[in-house]
Amino acid sequence: MHVVWYTAMSMDGRIASADSSLDFLSTIGPGQPTPDGDPWDFDAFLARVEAIVVGASTLRWLLQGGHGWPHGNLPTWLLSRDAALAATVGATTAPLVRREGDVGAVFEEIDTAGHVIVWLCGGGGVAGQALAADRIDEVVVTVAPTVLGAGPALFDGVGLPLRRFRLEECRTLGGDAARLRWVRQR
Amino acid sequence: MHVVWYTAMSMDGRIASADSSLDFLSTIGPGQPTPDGDPWDFDAFLARVEAIVVGASTLRWLLQGGHGWPHGNLPTWLLSRDAALAATVGATTAPLVRREGDVGAVFEEIDTAGHVIVWLCGGGGVAGQALAADRIDEVVVTVAPTVLGAGPALFDGVGLPLRRFRLEECRTLGGDAARLRWVRQR
Repeated sequence: MHVVWYTAMSMDGRIASADSSLDFLSTIGPGQPTPDGDPWDFDAFLARVEAIVVGASTLRWLLQGGHGWPHGNLPTWLLSRDAALAATVGATTAPLVRREGDVGAVFEEIDTAGHVIVWLCGGGGVAGQALAADRIDEVVVTVAPTVLGAGPALFDGVGLPLRRFRLEECRTLGGDAARLRWVRQR
Repeated sequence: MHVVWYTAMSMDGRIASADSSLDFLSTIGPGQPTPDGDPWDFDAFLARVEAIVVGASTLRWLLQGGHGWPHGNLPTWLLSRDAALAATVGATTAPLVRREGDVGAVFEEIDTAGHVIVWLCGGGGVAGQALAADRIDEVVVTVAPTVLGAGPALFDGVGLPLRRFRLEECRTLGGDAARLRWVRQR
């Protein structure tokens, strides 16, 4: 199993503003055409994803913004103590299961189900728990050319171990954004 | 005048851990030899700096760690409400002046004094105030290949305007670290 935390952040590591706005993403220009052999542009990435892990805050943000849950075709594990939250998503073509407690056990379950490429869809709190459990295999982040100063971060967690990553990709993307791709060094 | 916020951060935008440790910097390998014409490696950068702005937290961290103030040869503006803090630095060959209140006025003062290249030496709170005053001209950040999850960030501030930057440099540096350099787009 290979867990990828794929997202965008501001120069200062925030994935949304303090009031949950994603307006900062407007500073990212259109991406270049996908180079041959680069599997990491979002559509190509999503086509490879076999299962999704999403936290309650991210899902609530999507629902409140009227986006619904756009990935109902992929088996999804929702990390939430709120038993009613999954029901508000409505019908999905693939199972959406809610789990709470140890995030490590959730990844065990996904692994056992045979899914190989898993997208950690958000947010930073879930990413922090996954990092603590050493379940983050890859971080793909587009760094927008602006600053937020506050808001949820790429990783949120206290006392996380200093996991070491290998920088696999470092390039300009979408005008003045930077694409960084890190793979866990084991 | 040209203000440069030059520092290092974790993948998730933290410039120190929650307990003020810089241990994460150990994940950055030795830099490559300075390429000709690249003025942005630290020693070459420092050689160009004409004045420094530093916040109280950064200075206290240096003093408490036994580092003293290593840049006493450069005119320095200390942003602090603590009148005693500057005195604890001891003798310096260049003036160390303490200011409090509006950071914009401090930059005006530095500009009037004729300094051209100004290093914002830290920390994220000062950087946030400087960004709000639109006094950040450049951000040079080395992104370490590890995660902190908590701690002071590259920019700390609530309700900052979405300033737009131009990505001027995006390259691997020091093994698995990334060097990003952004210039304010005006």
